[in-house]
Amino acid sequence: MGKKIVIIGGVAAGPKAACRVKRLMPDAEVTIVDQDSLISYGGCGIPYYISGDVSDEKELRSTSYHALRDEDFFEKTKGVITLTSTRALSIDRRNKSVLLENLTTGLQNNVSYDVLMLATGSYPITLPIPGSDGDGVFTVSDLHKAISIKERIARGQVSKAVVIGGGAIGIEMAEALTDLWGVETALVEYMNHILPRTISWTLATILEKHLKENNVDVFAGEAAEEIVVVDGKVSAVRTSRRYLDADMVIMAAGVRPQSQLAWDAGLHVAASGAIVVNERMQSSDPDIYAAGDCIEVCHLVSGKRFHAPFGSMANKQGRVAADNMAGIPSTFKGGVGSFILKAFELCVGSTGLSLETALAEGFDADVSLTSPSDRAHFFPTQEIICLEMIFDRRTRKVLGLQGVGPMNDGLSARLDAAAVALCSGASIDDFGNIEMAYSPPFSSAIDGINAAAYVADNLCERRMRQISMESFYSYMDDPASQPDWLVLDVRHVKQAAPLVDHFGKSWWISLPYDEIRDRYEELPTDKTLILFCNAGSRSFEIQVFLDFVGRKNSLVLPGGFNVIRRMGAGWLPAS
Amino acid sequence: MGKKIVIIGGVAAGPKAACRVKRLMPDAEVTIVDQDSLISYGGCGIPYYISGDVSDEKELRSTSYHALRDEDFFEKTKGVITLTSTRALSIDRRNKSVLLENLTTGLQNNVSYDVLMLATGSYPITLPIPGSDGDGVFTVSDLHKAISIKERIARGQVSKAVVIGGGAIGIEMAEALTDLWGVETALVEYMNHILPRTISWTLATILEKHLKENNVDVFAGEAAEEIVVVDGKVSAVRTSRRYLDADMVIMAAGVRPQSQLAWDAGLHVAASGAIVVNERMQSSDPDIYAAGDCIEVCHLVSGKRFHAPFGSMANKQGRVAADNMAGIPSTFKGGVGSFILKAFELCVGSTGLSLETALAEGFDADVSLTSPSDRAHFFPTQEIICLEMIFDRRTRKVLGLQGVGPMNDGLSARLDAAAVALCSGASIDDFGNIEMAYSPPFSSAIDGINAAAYVADNLCERRMRQISMESFYSYMDDPASQPDWLVLDVRHVKQAAPLVDHFGKSWWISLPYDEIRDRYEELPTDKTLILFCNAGSRSFEIQVFLDFVGRKNSLVLPGGFNVIRRMGAGWLPAS
Repeated sequence: MGKKIVIIGGVAAGPKAACRVKRLMPDAEVTIVDQDSLISYGGCGIPYYISGDVSDEKELRSTSYHALRDEDFFEKTKGVITLTSTRALSIDRRNKSVLLENLTTGLQNNVSYDVLMLATGSYPITLPIPGSDGDGVFTVSDLHKAISIKERIARGQVSKAVVIGGGAIGIEMAEALTDLWGVETALVEYMNHILPRTISWTLATILEKHLKENNVDVFAGEAAEEIVVVDGKVSAVRTSRRYLDADMVIMAAGVRPQSQLAWDAGLHVAASGAIVVNERMQSSDPDIYAAGDCIEVCHLVSGKRFHAPFGSMANKQGRVAADNMAGIPSTFKGGVGSFILKAFELCVGSTGLSLETALAEGFDADVSLTSPSDRAHFFPTQEIICLEMIFDRRTRKVLGLQGVGPMNDGLSARLDAAAVALCSGASIDDFGNIEMAYSPPFSSAIDGINAAAYVADNLCERRMRQISMESFYSYMDDPASQPDWLVLDVRHVKQAAPLVDHFGKSWWISLPYDEIRDRYEELPTDKTLILFCNAGSRSFEIQVFLDFVGRKNSLVLPGGFNVIRRMGAGWLPAS
Repeated sequence: MGKKIVIIGGVAAGPKAACRVKRLMPDAEVTIVDQDSLISYGGCGIPYYISGDVSDEKELRSTSYHALRDEDFFEKTKGVITLTSTRALSIDRRNKSVLLENLTTGLQNNVSYDVLMLATGSYPITLPIPGSDGDGVFTVSDLHKAISIKERIARGQVSKAVVIGGGAIGIEMAEALTDLWGVETALVEYMNHILPRTISWTLATILEKHLKENNVDVFAGEAAEEIVVVDGKVSAVRTSRRYLDADMVIMAAGVRPQSQLAWDAGLHVAASGAIVVNERMQSSDPDIYAAGDCIEVCHLVSGKRFHAPFGSMANKQGRVAADNMAGIPSTFKGGVGSFILKAFELCVGSTGLSLETALAEGFDADVSLTSPSDRAHFFPTQEIICLEMIFDRRTRKVLGLQGVGPMNDGLSARLDAAAVALCSGASIDDFGNIEMAYSPPFSSAIDGINAAAYVADNLCERRMRQISMESFYSYMDDPASQPDWLVLDVRHVKQAAPLVDHFGKSWWISLPYDEIRDRYEELPTDKTLILFCNAGSRSFEIQVFLDFVGRKNSLVLPGGFNVIRRMGAGWLPAS
């Protein structure tokens, strides 16, 4: 018999490593230990199980050829022993053994190892507010909870729900509850917009509008302060501003690395609670590997370590750990935090840093906001993607890309290409030349990712001066606050007319793009002109021309009406 | 007045460069010269104009905000002069002037330049066969021809068509003719499969089957030898094997760089006919730039120069040329030949080298063929993509990626990420860790691109031994040719049974994946076992196990039945 390998944790990184190492060293004795009775499942699929897109939880723990990944499966097809309903209590590093407890029988025993791997995952944060232990409060952290949630809804016991937390899981759960089940759902996020830090206020506003249009109430900037429990059961959530009735509360306030076992064993654990590993997935004890949601990895843009609890990361890390256990010097160098999300008919995603996180990391960061078509603008299925490219003015490095687009793989294509480029420290110039496979049904001759880089280039070189969408909205909410500003709408007069009529010519004037070279002298010189078009590109051209004729009093509104229409605004005239 | 810039060619690279340079140097005098009356159009959209997806040719030459890009548009909105229906006859490099002829009036005049740019594009190859000048033979090389083709079809004059050339344009045209117009269409390709060199026989077979199912007759391995013309009009195409009736013939036999002007001026022109430029898009005369279909660029995988006539490349090169004209040292380093194609309900694409081109370039190339889901296998909209990753065994570099999948952007996402990675010389290990944004509606926890790299790794390290799909088909066409071979179907007995019944147990045996660890001793040791499953992954696991127990007599059939079902085969039993 070969090496004894014990792996604690049986969801993603653990089973991946177990199967890989067994293939590399078929004579190894490989054991997976998990405190749960259900293992090796696609946790990211839980919202789709609850929505009904996935009809049976067994599908989440089956292979593509419909074999259930239970204990018997691992034994018979992988030659891997699985000890489910078994908790690892402690690690004796000197004697290289783990103390296990069978949760069914209560019996304890020591299991020795040559190599140990921790794939203990993460645990959901439960907010320390009154009522958080009430009946009807759920986290979305394992299949049992998912089954309970679905059963309760299917039994007709849930007519109103509150989701606490506007991150990916919160949004996916809000869709699941609303879309199939018709549960009246409210989403509460204590930061000032949903998906905070990940995407900007601008993109989040588009997403919030879409959620509301799909019957999800969104309350951002409100802390959930209490879960009101009556007779032991959830009846409402009290936020800093209101009461929201609820038969069910989904607590989706984020996750933390599960590292108690590592900590107790004296392994190096970061302040975040994540186990510290090297590129080979070794903890501070070289005989103990760790992978998945319980570790932190290098962020390849910031250079700092970060916690990236994604199933895709876990699988890659599991494979790298297995290679190293078997003597193959594979490495996992880190990631850029790519993320994508379906929200009804929208797709939202990010890779690298957002403007907010880039500024917090000390970059001289700025953003290029554009609104390109996802395929040739003349192709009938084309739709607009709103893209934000984050870059560093000093080094001209691209730092991140975020977007909101229609529900297809078009945003994925841009994010995935960008993620690869970010990993190699690509510059604005590199992004300008990224080669997206081109054909009208798939992309544009000048793809959105290239065009975003072109705009970033123009901003970086101060050929373009812009006003942020946030500043523009502040101004439009109270135009009197900036009496020296004036919007110059360069679109066709027919498009501009309703806004000119609505706001009056002291706030909104029209002079079409194709007439400005002849008529620019009609424009006021004593006001700052905010150049307004559909996408921002005509506005930029006008700015260049006005600068050339000595009128440097303009700012481009990037992304233009394409973005505003998707964000919505109280100040827009009813159409 | 600033620099005088003359640009010859007004379709893609030319207008892009003209507008960019005018923005960078508003005082420059920028003139575009084109022999055609129609300029600045999306040539790649022609098949969609003919199919009717794009209803009016004007859409192909309009902006996203519906402005027609004609002479007046360039003058009024861009400040660029356009001389259409004007041919550049010769370049006088010493005096820095170009001799122009107005094709309407016949008048000639010299125009001086400070900087000249050649964006003369490419011209379609007309095969030197009898009848190629007959009425009804068309190339798809400009808008006038596109309009003529569509008019002729719309008038009901075309009931049968033959497309000569199984490249991208040929396939797109075959779809356009068949899909909307119901023209009986045959596609003739003289190489042994369509999209030769770009994709493999395996992937091309999937595509050919799909075309046939959509009423396009495909005749590969047949040269068109004559276009039969009766009374001046096309009536048929004679190939090396048959007559194909035709009222219309589309000649889509490829394009060549249009470089006569450059050649006559003594500029460096490659053997391919392409103008040689540096990374700044300068020809051998530093005052003459060139960009677009008339040049060749560096292939970032092979390191050799190649001709890449793509509208997306042309636009990037045009921008780089403009930057340099204005003193900004931008560079265009080259490309990897990314390509994507819609064919009815399929999507086909490639980036980097195919196995054939990689071997021709002298690489120690091999291929990993896989058939992953394009999103989580439990997500209801998932479909299979057939992927081929080409790699170099010696250096472990990835050389290319090709695929056929459903008609969505899923293949684009993988190709675009791969293209970026190829540009930086990424290895199999890098591809294994490419970070694809993950969520079940978009991708898998182990994405297809990562899994392809895992298989490549196993092949490279000789942990996996495979038989090519081509060899397998040869064998199945004539099993008696390899009496020592036997297929071991490791799928569920119910899936294997029809094939066991059909072929008999001397050719096809069944032993399910989950029973082999217990029953492997039943397997013959005197034959080579071809391991057969749906995707190849179970087969690989079985090979590892059999090797471990000392039975090294197996070969994995990569991609498995997922690929075969899509290819079709005469030897498959009717289902």
